[in-house]
Amino acid sequence: MIYFDNAATTFPKPDTVYEAVMECMKNYAANPGRGSYDMAVRASKKVMETREEIAKLFNVSNLFNIIFTSSATEGLNMGIKGILKRGDHVITTAMEHNSVLRPINYLRKKSVKSSIVGADKYGFVSLKNIEKQIRVNTKMIVVNHVSNVTGSIQDIERIGEIARRYGVIFMVDASQSAGVINIDVNKCNIDVMAFSGHKGLLGPQGTGVLYIREGLEVSEYKSGGTGSNSYSMHQPKFLPDKFESGTLNTPGIAGLYAGVRFIKEIGMDNIRKHELELTEALLKELKKRDYIILYGREDMEDRSAVVSLNVDGVDSSDTAAMLNSKGIGVRNGYHCAPLVHEVIGTKNRGTVRVSPGYFNTLEEIERLVKALDEIHGGITQNE
Amino acid sequence: MIYFDNAATTFPKPDTVYEAVMECMKNYAANPGRGSYDMAVRASKKVMETREEIAKLFNVSNLFNIIFTSSATEGLNMGIKGILKRGDHVITTAMEHNSVLRPINYLRKKSVKSSIVGADKYGFVSLKNIEKQIRVNTKMIVVNHVSNVTGSIQDIERIGEIARRYGVIFMVDASQSAGVINIDVNKCNIDVMAFSGHKGLLGPQGTGVLYIREGLEVSEYKSGGTGSNSYSMHQPKFLPDKFESGTLNTPGIAGLYAGVRFIKEIGMDNIRKHELELTEALLKELKKRDYIILYGREDMEDRSAVVSLNVDGVDSSDTAAMLNSKGIGVRNGYHCAPLVHEVIGTKNRGTVRVSPGYFNTLEEIERLVKALDEIHGGITQNE
Repeated sequence: MIYFDNAATTFPKPDTVYEAVMECMKNYAANPGRGSYDMAVRASKKVMETREEIAKLFNVSNLFNIIFTSSATEGLNMGIKGILKRGDHVITTAMEHNSVLRPINYLRKKSVKSSIVGADKYGFVSLKNIEKQIRVNTKMIVVNHVSNVTGSIQDIERIGEIARRYGVIFMVDASQSAGVINIDVNKCNIDVMAFSGHKGLLGPQGTGVLYIREGLEVSEYKSGGTGSNSYSMHQPKFLPDKFESGTLNTPGIAGLYAGVRFIKEIGMDNIRKHELELTEALLKELKKRDYIILYGREDMEDRSAVVSLNVDGVDSSDTAAMLNSKGIGVRNGYHCAPLVHEVIGTKNRGTVRVSPGYFNTLEEIERLVKALDEIHGGITQNE
Repeated sequence: MIYFDNAATTFPKPDTVYEAVMECMKNYAANPGRGSYDMAVRASKKVMETREEIAKLFNVSNLFNIIFTSSATEGLNMGIKGILKRGDHVITTAMEHNSVLRPINYLRKKSVKSSIVGADKYGFVSLKNIEKQIRVNTKMIVVNHVSNVTGSIQDIERIGEIARRYGVIFMVDASQSAGVINIDVNKCNIDVMAFSGHKGLLGPQGTGVLYIREGLEVSEYKSGGTGSNSYSMHQPKFLPDKFESGTLNTPGIAGLYAGVRFIKEIGMDNIRKHELELTEALLKELKKRDYIILYGREDMEDRSAVVSLNVDGVDSSDTAAMLNSKGIGVRNGYHCAPLVHEVIGTKNRGTVRVSPGYFNTLEEIERLVKALDEIHGGITQNE
């Protein structure tokens, strides 16, 4: 199968990721941070090394500000629900995934107010519109860095400036960008950032990361055993333990380490360059075809390797099913980002999403285009 | 290394578990429940098959009442924080792990009242004492099935009867028992039950399960994308989606499937029998030695394969370190269960915990006893 669903989870992973997971599971998958025997120490060490690699990747100076989660969703819940309290106001955007919209929607029932800033038809949010929404009680701005539907990249550096200027907490959902686009938490003034380990960072599923700026007060979320302060019934107040209750996914984290090392060896810029080459080649071909409806920017400016489209007159689910029958895996539907479809005008049909990854090839892009032509040809013939 | 920390996480896993994780990662680790292409469908199918295997194991009739979590801790938080509201009263026990005590302690700040029922010096909670604590506003009883410190097994069937009689929700922390002791949620009147996938169920770390009885109202915990109702900003109200936001740990779940299948093939009773044989052999030798202080029951009644001890005059951490230098991995300290140490009188020193698993042998037990003798001999000689 030609896999084009890298925005959901990257596949395949580098061989070193598989090897790292197995090496851990078979040799040292003890409970990290809990035991003093060699295997447990080795598990703790691997967790710490991974923390350090990830901290460096995002220019985080204290590795304890890197918290391991089970998914970006968990990290987003921890940040959003841990920061916003009754009476607070939060600004977010129409480009968000449900992993941001649903926690905020949940908090609305608890008297948290929210403003959702719209986007232009290409999926870009205007800085002015964000700034306009700031109120006296605005506590936080939460922004999706890269859309999982349109691939549009928001200017987090400038949004970060706005947040700093008004003394508002700035939270970034970097699920689609971490590992692909360089992010410096200091330069972008990011206070909280959540992302998956199994997407751009090339780690296994069941891994995610939450960054919390040193000194930022965030309430506890998942309370429980941490291996620290074990004699106390109170959740520890220090990071990362405050947010890492329960046994960590050690083999997953070991795999994530290998994923991050792979990125550093290949070079994040080279990975991004390859993905953009594939995207550009795809867009170039798609634009030639009248029967293809494209969403988001059709050029390469401020975009990532996500292309949303529809075949004229065909349901997105039918297109995806026909591509599947030709051995090509793409996603169809709303991609858990409901408001984006008002922005791009696909409320009634959703989109077919093609998200190439580092391991895709130009030849696979050509096969996808050929398959789309065949689908269109088949439909036209039947009419 | 001789591994005796199976109460923290079982090690090694059956070979089929390693194979299942790798098979999934390399061939079908797409995002389950999200795509319609073959790989994603295969991922969804594996998740569903695992749900079914686990449902059957605990006599749960509707597999959708089985929710995948990242750990027992997450499931315990979901249940405890999702059920108890301001003004409610909860009864729990001194035998609990911090994964129960800390969430309850967190809720105390939110006007939830709690009573902690003590235990006898062997780690058993009296049914009468539980019943005595029931008040008009008692909403739930939360009980640790098997202690991770003393191995004492609470009579959940009879506690379930009490809960039913008073119309109180009954929640069980089955972290130490799931996969080792047969649990029938109907027979025991269990409404909510959380457990790890990486302990007795022999799955990988990063997996856990929460069972919620059909129709029981539990508030959402981790809000976000579920792949269902994708066009809505509201968390779905149906199970399991309501509690499964974010990408699941598909390879972990595939491994858990293999773990459960292994248990069914060997037979849970045979696994338990082997673990108890090891425990009995260990206790028999330890009881002969004056220099060993044993905690919990010294016979085999109502106990599981967890033995807590100390070497007279030696810190638990020193004993563990010396055992480690002899290639034996055990845990020392408080084991994230603070109140148990008041029960067994180890407030100031914690315990050395030996937790044999299915893959340990009688010969390894003999080597442990010999190592303890050497440690004691070395200490005596130095005096």
